[in-house]
Amino acid sequence: MSLNEVKVVALAHEAFEDLELWYPVLRLREEGVRVHIAGEKAGMVYHGKHGVPVTTDIRYDEMDPGTYHGLIIPGGWAPDKLRREERILDFVSQLNQQGKPIGEICHAGWVLISAGIVQGRRVTSTPAIRDDMVNAGGQWRDEPVVVDKNLVSSRRPPDLPIYMKTYIDRLKAYCDQHKG
Amino acid sequence: MSLNEVKVVALAHEAFEDLELWYPVLRLREEGVRVHIAGEKAGMVYHGKHGVPVTTDIRYDEMDPGTYHGLIIPGGWAPDKLRREERILDFVSQLNQQGKPIGEICHAGWVLISAGIVQGRRVTSTPAIRDDMVNAGGQWRDEPVVVDKNLVSSRRPPDLPIYMKTYIDRLKAYCDQHKG
Repeated sequence: MSLNEVKVVALAHEAFEDLELWYPVLRLREEGVRVHIAGEKAGMVYHGKHGVPVTTDIRYDEMDPGTYHGLIIPGGWAPDKLRREERILDFVSQLNQQGKPIGEICHAGWVLISAGIVQGRRVTSTPAIRDDMVNAGGQWRDEPVVVDKNLVSSRRPPDLPIYMKTYIDRLKAYCDQHKG
Repeated sequence: MSLNEVKVVALAHEAFEDLELWYPVLRLREEGVRVHIAGEKAGMVYHGKHGVPVTTDIRYDEMDPGTYHGLIIPGGWAPDKLRREERILDFVSQLNQQGKPIGEICHAGWVLISAGIVQGRRVTSTPAIRDDMVNAGGQWRDEPVVVDKNLVSSRRPPDLPIYMKTYIDRLKAYCDQHKG
């Protein structure tokens, strides 16, 4: 399997952190990865907390864990909304069980907490939600990027370069494990 | 010479296109390139046309053509301001004479026009300024990315992945030519 065959979902909702959604989406597309942006409806427009728009490609309930190989969750205020959606939490939980690469940054850790996959994992996040991550059983580190098996977490926008370099390495490793 | 030794300037001014400044800056940093964001003053904050902030690192008159190996110019409304600054036009012109990679996207072509380096070059841009590019002597193409020697041009934000892949390839080629 090569990156050209890989499909990744990027979760969107109102007030996402602009660069934390767009840098990963554009960066993965640069690698030939097919990225689908998911929202409450397909073809709807959300705005980032600074105002950059994004148009969704698919609905949350079109996120089939059998179809997609990876997931990207941005920060901003969107995670506060995303964590309330049962179909999103199911998707996150199933992707995690399958060992598929999950990238999350800043406030996105809230979604992992509500999906129940933080217990015992090495993670980072914005310091604002450190207590929530620790209370959920996470081993929190103040590092630009933290990897725990399929889980790649990061803190804030200036960490985006090392975050995406690391996430793409995980995606390549996943491809290598699923060759032929 | 390797990408870790390369220094690139990214030009900023009020109402830059948010992703057209930030994607290249973060992407180059991911490759280990040192990127300095230039503005009227160092340490000042500009906002993109959608509202994403950027803090400048250096003043325009600190842009020494002997120190930097490349240049990135974003679109948005910033180029309308950037093209009025003689020190910027001098820098662009000298970098071009030295064959150093210049990346420009969307409305950034205005800066090249005023620096007098469009004549006879294959270029693209947002269709909005196509007539200006043609009147300045450019051979305009409607393609996601166009390369003419050291000049890499692109049209709009969805082209950012192929734009930066191509610009980084040019930067690597420049490094290979300046080994040892």
